[in-house]
Formats: sequence, C-alpha cells, structure tokens
Amino acid sequence: MNGAESLLRSLVDSGVELCVTNPGTSEMHFVAALDRVPGMRPVLGLQENVVTGAADGYGRMLDKPAATLLHLGPGLANGLANLHNARRAHTPIVNVIGDHATTHRHLDAPLTSDVEAVAAPFSHWVRVSTSCRSVGRDAAEAVAVARAQPGQIASLILPADSSWNEPGVPAKARPVPEPSAPPSETIDSIAARLREHTPAAILLGGRALREESLALAAAIGEATGARILTDTFFARLERGGTRPSIDRIPYFTEQAVEKLADVADLVLVHTRAPVGFFAYPDKPSVIADPKTRIHTLAELEEDAEEALRALAEALGVRKIEPGAYRSRAPRPERPTGALDPMAIARAVGALLPENAIVVDESATAGLGLLPATESAPIHDWLSLTGGAIGQGIPSATGAALACPDRRVLNMQADGSAMYTIQALWTQARESLDVTTVILANRSYAILNLELNRTGAAPSRVAGELFDLSRPELDFVSIAAGLGVPGVRVEDAESFTKELDRSLREPGPRLIEAVL
Amino acid sequence: MNGAESLLRSLVDSGVELCVTNPGTSEMHFVAALDRVPGMRPVLGLQENVVTGAADGYGRMLDKPAATLLHLGPGLANGLANLHNARRAHTPIVNVIGDHATTHRHLDAPLTSDVEAVAAPFSHWVRVSTSCRSVGRDAAEAVAVARAQPGQIASLILPADSSWNEPGVPAKARPVPEPSAPPSETIDSIAARLREHTPAAILLGGRALREESLALAAAIGEATGARILTDTFFARLERGGTRPSIDRIPYFTEQAVEKLADVADLVLVHTRAPVGFFAYPDKPSVIADPKTRIHTLAELEEDAEEALRALAEALGVRKIEPGAYRSRAPRPERPTGALDPMAIARAVGALLPENAIVVDESATAGLGLLPATESAPIHDWLSLTGGAIGQGIPSATGAALACPDRRVLNMQADGSAMYTIQALWTQARESLDVTTVILANRSYAILNLELNRTGAAPSRVAGELFDLSRPELDFVSIAAGLGVPGVRVEDAESFTKELDRSLREPGPRLIEAVL
Repeated sequence: MNGAESLLRSLVDSGVELCVTNPGTSEMHFVAALDRVPGMRPVLGLQENVVTGAADGYGRMLDKPAATLLHLGPGLANGLANLHNARRAHTPIVNVIGDHATTHRHLDAPLTSDVEAVAAPFSHWVRVSTSCRSVGRDAAEAVAVARAQPGQIASLILPADSSWNEPGVPAKARPVPEPSAPPSETIDSIAARLREHTPAAILLGGRALREESLALAAAIGEATGARILTDTFFARLERGGTRPSIDRIPYFTEQAVEKLADVADLVLVHTRAPVGFFAYPDKPSVIADPKTRIHTLAELEEDAEEALRALAEALGVRKIEPGAYRSRAPRPERPTGALDPMAIARAVGALLPENAIVVDESATAGLGLLPATESAPIHDWLSLTGGAIGQGIPSATGAALACPDRRVLNMQADGSAMYTIQALWTQARESLDVTTVILANRSYAILNLELNRTGAAPSRVAGELFDLSRPELDFVSIAAGLGVPGVRVEDAESFTKELDRSLREPGPRLIEAVL
Repeated sequence: MNGAESLLRSLVDSGVELCVTNPGTSEMHFVAALDRVPGMRPVLGLQENVVTGAADGYGRMLDKPAATLLHLGPGLANGLANLHNARRAHTPIVNVIGDHATTHRHLDAPLTSDVEAVAAPFSHWVRVSTSCRSVGRDAAEAVAVARAQPGQIASLILPADSSWNEPGVPAKARPVPEPSAPPSETIDSIAARLREHTPAAILLGGRALREESLALAAAIGEATGARILTDTFFARLERGGTRPSIDRIPYFTEQAVEKLADVADLVLVHTRAPVGFFAYPDKPSVIADPKTRIHTLAELEEDAEEALRALAEALGVRKIEPGAYRSRAPRPERPTGALDPMAIARAVGALLPENAIVVDESATAGLGLLPATESAPIHDWLSLTGGAIGQGIPSATGAALACPDRRVLNMQADGSAMYTIQALWTQARESLDVTTVILANRSYAILNLELNRTGAAPSRVAGELFDLSRPELDFVSIAAGLGVPGVRVEDAESFTKELDRSLREPGPRLIEAVL
C-alpha cells in the first residue's frame, strides 16, 4: 500500500465520505487510490473555489468534514476565498493539497510556491506530510482537528513522493473531545443578571442556532424578558415550522447600533460581541453601546446547548413545548404583478417546502427573505459568513451533496453568482436538487449604497464600475452552457410558477429573476 | 486631497495608466478618486483572477505595470493564481489591496484576514500604508519596485482610513535603475568556452526573447555551433517574419533530457538550468546531464541584450542582417477534412496576421502550434509561465488592453478555460479584438497522460474525474451569456473560415473547435 492509499483509508476510517476535487499531476496516486478504497465519493469541480465552497456547504449541513483535493499552491489559492467563509462559519474541512515531491521542491519548478504559507492564513492547522509512513497518521489527526468543536480548517500538504512511496500506514480514527459545559460560576452570574430584568439580549451564533438551543433560549427570553438575537451572518440556522423565530442584527452599522441601543446586558452564546462589517468615517465600529455589559455564556469551544440548559435550570425556566412558538402570521400569498425583491420574498415564503435548505447569498435584493419565510415549514438557512462573495452556488452544491433527500434553494445575487458560476456544472453532473434563483439587478447594488455611506464623493466612474448591464449577463444562456436548464422571468406570476415547478422537479434548475 | 487621491496621482505620475479591478466597500474612496484624476483607465473584471491575469498580459506586452485594485484578503486570494503566473513571467504589477481601517482591523470583522500573509507568497514586495501621508510615497515606491528588471509583483495594502483621511501627499516617480551588463570576466570565460566548439547550447529566457537579443544569439550560434533554445514556458517571445527561430525544450521530462543529452556547455541568459515540470518516480528532476557545465551569461537582473552583444563582440561575431533567418518553410496550406490539433495548427499557421499576439494556454491540443507558425509574419507569443491554469482568457484580455491596434489570438484548452471564463465579459465590455479558440477535447487530457507517467495504477475514477463530457460544456452558449458571439465548428474548413473571419473583424469572438 502506498502513502496515498493509506491516506484515503485513514480518511474513510475517520468518517470522511466525500472528496471534492480538481486534481493535477501531483495528485495522481491519490486519484488512482480512489478506485481501490471504497467509501469515498469523488466529486469534480471546475475551479477550486467551487471545491472549497462545496466542502463548506456539506460541512455546515452534516457537522463533519468533507475532504478537498487541491493541486499545489495555485490550486489551493483558487479556493481560499471560500475557505475564508468556511473558517468564519466554523465549518470542519480537511484540505489535502498535493505538492511537488520532497526531492523536487528545492528546484523551484514553475508550479512551486510556499504551500504552507498559502494555507496558513485560512487554516487552523497546517502540516506537511513528509513521509509515506506518516501520511495516514497525519490524515487521522487532520480529521480530528477539523471535527473539534466548533469546527476547523485542517490543511494537509502531501508531497507527491509521500503519496507514491511505500509503505503507507493507515491510521484509525482519533477520538474527538466532546465540548465541555461552561463553569457553573459563569451560569450563575449570568442567571443572576437576567433575574434583575434589566434590558437584556441573548445573542446566539454557531451551534446555538440549532432547534434545541433555540427553544431553550426562547424559553429563557420569555421568562426573563431578554430578547433573542442572532448575528447578521450565520453558518446555519434551523427555523420555520414549530421552531422559535429569532431576530437578526441588521447589516448596516447604524441600524445595528439602534437595535442594541437599549441593551444593558448582552449575553453571548457561541459568538462574539458584534462589530461593524466595515468601518465608516463617522460611525462606530463596535455595535453595542459602550455602557452595555457583555457576558459570555458559552465560548465557541464549549457546549452551547448544555450552557443554555444549565442557564434555564438556574433560572427555573421550563422549555416551552414545540408548537408554542408557531408564528401566528400566515404564510404570504403568492405574489402578483411586478417582480421586485418583496414579490420574490413572498413567493419564497409561500412555496418553500418542508425540510428545504436555503443558501442565501442574496445581498441587497434579499433583505425581505427572512421575514417572509418565518411561517414556512421547517428548513435550514445558510448565510455568507465571511463576506467573500461567490459562496452561494458552491455551498448549495455541497449542501445538496450532503442531503440528497432535501431541496436546496439558492437565493443568489447576480454579481456574486459570477464569481463561481462554474459550480452549476457540478450540480448538473451530480443531478443535484438545487434551484438557483439569480436576483438579476444587473449591478453590484450594495456598492452604490456603500459609496454614499463611506462618504466618498458621487462618482461617474463608480457608477460604471458597479454596473453589470454592459453587456447584460444572460444567466439562462450561461447555465445552459454548463448543463443546467433555466428560465428568465420578469413578473411575479411567472416567477412564482417557475419556482413552484422547480421546487417539485428533481435536478438542478436556474431561474433568472429580472429586477 | 485624501489619501486615495494622492495614491492615484502618484501611480499616474509613475506611468501607471490601467487599473483592473473588482472593488468593494473598503475601496470606495479610491474608486471615487478615479473621477478626479485623469490618466487612469479603470477596467472591471467579474472575478479577481481575471483582474490579475489581465494585469499580467498587459505587463508582458508593455514591460510596465498595470495596477490592480482588490478587495481585502479574499479578493486578493481570488487573484493569487494568476499572480503566481505573473511572478514566474517576471511581469511588473502593482496590486492595491483595500483593507479594513486601521481602527477596525483588531475587531476581526467577518472579512478580516491577514492580508500581508496572503500577499507574501506571490509578491516580491509587500507594504501596509498606515497613514494618508505615506500612501503617495508608498505607491511611487511600489511602481519602482515593480519596474525594476526583470519585473516584480509589488503589493500595497491600503487600509480604508489611509484612503479617506487627509492630507494625501502625491509623490513623484522614482528612478528605476537600469540593469547592468554582466562583468567582463563572465563574458570572456563563456567566449573562451564557446571558442572550443564543444557541443553547446544557449538557453534564453526573460527579455532575451526579444528580437535584438535573439538575433545576437542566433549569430553567436551560427558562428560557434551552439544551439539556441528557449524554456518550455516563457513570458513573451518575439517571433515570425524575419526574426530568427528558436527551438523549445519539450514539456515531458524524458524528451527534455534527450534534447539536452549531448550538451557539454549550457549557457543561460535570463533563465535558470531547466528542471522537470513535475517529479516522477523513476525520472530525473534536473534536465541537463550531470556532466554538463552550466554557465550564466546574464542573471535576470542584468541586461541580456548587452550581455549577448558583448559575447558576440568577444567572439568576433557580426550580427546577421534581418532576413537572413527567414524560415524557408512555406506557410502551411489551409487544412481540410477532419478537425484535429494538427489541422488547427495549420490553420493558425496559414492565417496568423502580422503583429498578432498569441496567448497560448493550449495544453495537449496545442503541441503543433509553434512549429506551424514558424513562417507566419511577425508576432508575439505568450505562454503559461507558472502552470496555474486559467491564465489564457484573462491574459489575452490584458494584452488587448495593452495593444489596441493588434489582434489577440487566444489558443485555449477547454478545462483551463473554465477556470476564468468570466474574462470574456470584460472583452465584450471593452470591445477588445480577441479571438478565443477553445480546443474542446472535453477532458483534462494532460492528466490522462500524466496518470500513466507517474506510475499510478489505471483507474476508473481517474477516467471519470478527467472527463468534461458529462455534461458537455457548451462554450458558445456560455460566451453568448457573457456577451461574446461565438460559433462551434467540427471540421477543418469551417474552423479555417471562422478563424479567418474573426481575425479580420473587430471585437471579441469565440470559436469552439470540437476535437
């Protein structure tokens, strides 16, 4: 058995079942080993930001890592932006990055770069596996690192000779430590605070956005008057159906500041005190009022659900039974008339099927989506955690690979879509049940807002640089070229009809919603 | 004047005239300043590897830097692969990378990353401009660094507050040192070697591939019997017409080794001793025979043309007059019959117009292109210097921006095309005279060869992962969606007719050549 085969066997033994890849010559022995080792599904992406984005979507849904297989420094570099998003989402991912043979590296051949240095800024753990004998052990450690809560990016660099040399030594899965509950002093002091009924808010992130934690938080909120909030961007939120609804901190700094203005005590669970997405010349960078007292109930490494349960117990709060939070607002009616962001939001709210996964990279055109889907059946919501655009289509691809029995709806801004449009091809190749809605406002609309907000002078050049209508992007034509059938719609009825159809039919489909 | 305006004025004063960009909120003040500062042309790319690749093509043609404007760490990360190619081509580029305000950075907002660390592996020079007062000076230094022969990547990180604060202080252009001639001892000792008429070869790279240097090298070769060679991949080669032709070291290690097997003395001009592109289990990594004596006539930092002139003088060699090298082989006839790589090569050889720029990312399907164009009128040839695929379409875009009066012909492998297909949109937007020929063999054909060459076992999975026919990519449809008209051809006559048409008509066009 060579190093590559031992690596693959070790990954499979540690529970890794998906390898998303765009391989090259230095990864040939790993590719060949895929034939000999059952249990690993290889999926091809046409560019590496598709690969890493798919691993992100997969990891968010299953709380376990996919492997990526990448080709030297440049192949890794192409995938860094979605690794950045994954890192911000605390998604577990194991990157396997082929490199030149150890005997070849010092010669500085054209594809040589410092792969460790390329990986480091977006990885929690980087290791070069310098011998066929260590590859298996390193792979098992990489998976354990990736799985450690809250989820990490582990990057294993695989020189070609570590891959082709023998003997490879497969390694058994390493134990992954369970997250611990926060110390009881923390629980007690926060409980004491909340008992005083000062204006308080509990800000949830990470794994505190799962159903059980949300129910505990909602009960605590109901008993103490504390508001329950989530960050503007989150990895995965379980919502809809009988799940409690949760309010989100707005994107724009001034609105976010207003949202938290009256909060005397801010309790953090799996998140940090909110800060502005960007700085602006005359706006604060820290969202909470300077007088707000900040308390951390559970660090990201701790068990959020246990922390909330302990807090509820300390407060004598009983969890409210499922159903008690059911939103009373009826689902929106199917929209008619002009197609605008609100009509789109209503259509999604009216039609979203049970157990859907919404991948939201909708930017400005999607501001109404969350409220409109409050009363939809249970579903998961994934958002753009790191601000690196081009996350949506790849992440939707990965979510569909993770959950083949669920419909994925990708609400996708047009400018961001063009970053990783290649991912549609993988959706077609793997026959994935993904509906991509392109919110085609033909511009980087957010930048027209931001230009003004940053205090920059009005600018003709800016208007041109934010304009995507010269020439107009034809997403239906692009999707067809990538093997995904699509349709362009320009009114609310057509949009609703096409969305309804796509959500029921198997396979990928793209709807270009002209705004 | 704010920092952004001083930066822009400093770039323009230093001779930078093109800014390729995909900006974001942190770059708003720079974008707004483009309105107030004449002399800088802003060009939008839909993804950053388009941006950096265009800067590479531009810099290769003009020997001067374009600026890029990139959005924080992830925006830079998206463009690293083509910066890798540019670095290997010694292309001068000035990256301006927006970052969070200095007051905001420590808060670790979602888009925060260590931008310096992201830039470092692919930059020769990295600086954070921490004050509006230093931005202008830093920009002038960045341009001087980029322009220093042989051309470098200078990355200037621009915190948003350095951009919006006042006063900005514009800086004058810095002098760029001229490259020096090599010491006379070097010339004399190499001349002495060549006078012995041992089997010798002169290997040219970098700026030694320009007409005057080639003519000097050819004359030296004729007088001494030394063969004149170039690296497998080069930044820009001036060829065709009355220019001397030059033989290329083959890509595959075993063929390259054979090519140099009998060379007793290898003279390097603006390049290094050749090494294998990859390592293979039972093949050497160093191409030249261990007994070959290696001599460096001119380091990359030195003046190649002066070095060759001095060597010619030391040898008493007179430069042969233009015309004496004219290849006697007639241009190929227009091909007929089946469309295969050789028919494509002959058509290009028959039709390539005077002063064309060929951007060659043709991979396996383009092996016949160089020989078939030997007798074409004068033209420039750009190749994939760093092996990071996705260079062709962006680089062709940049070459066309640099040379609006010349036709650009991009010979483009299909798998590589999909890495940066978005660049077609910029070609349409800027009405660039680029013909993109997609060599559509529906596979990563090189990997089918490499799988065997690396000694990996035959593999069903590999066959699937290297196959791009499930679903079939429709490049005409994709190009149409990006605003570029295209046509699919399946026989040699149609290909020739469409190529002829496109080379005469203004504007971009794509030809999908089905192989």
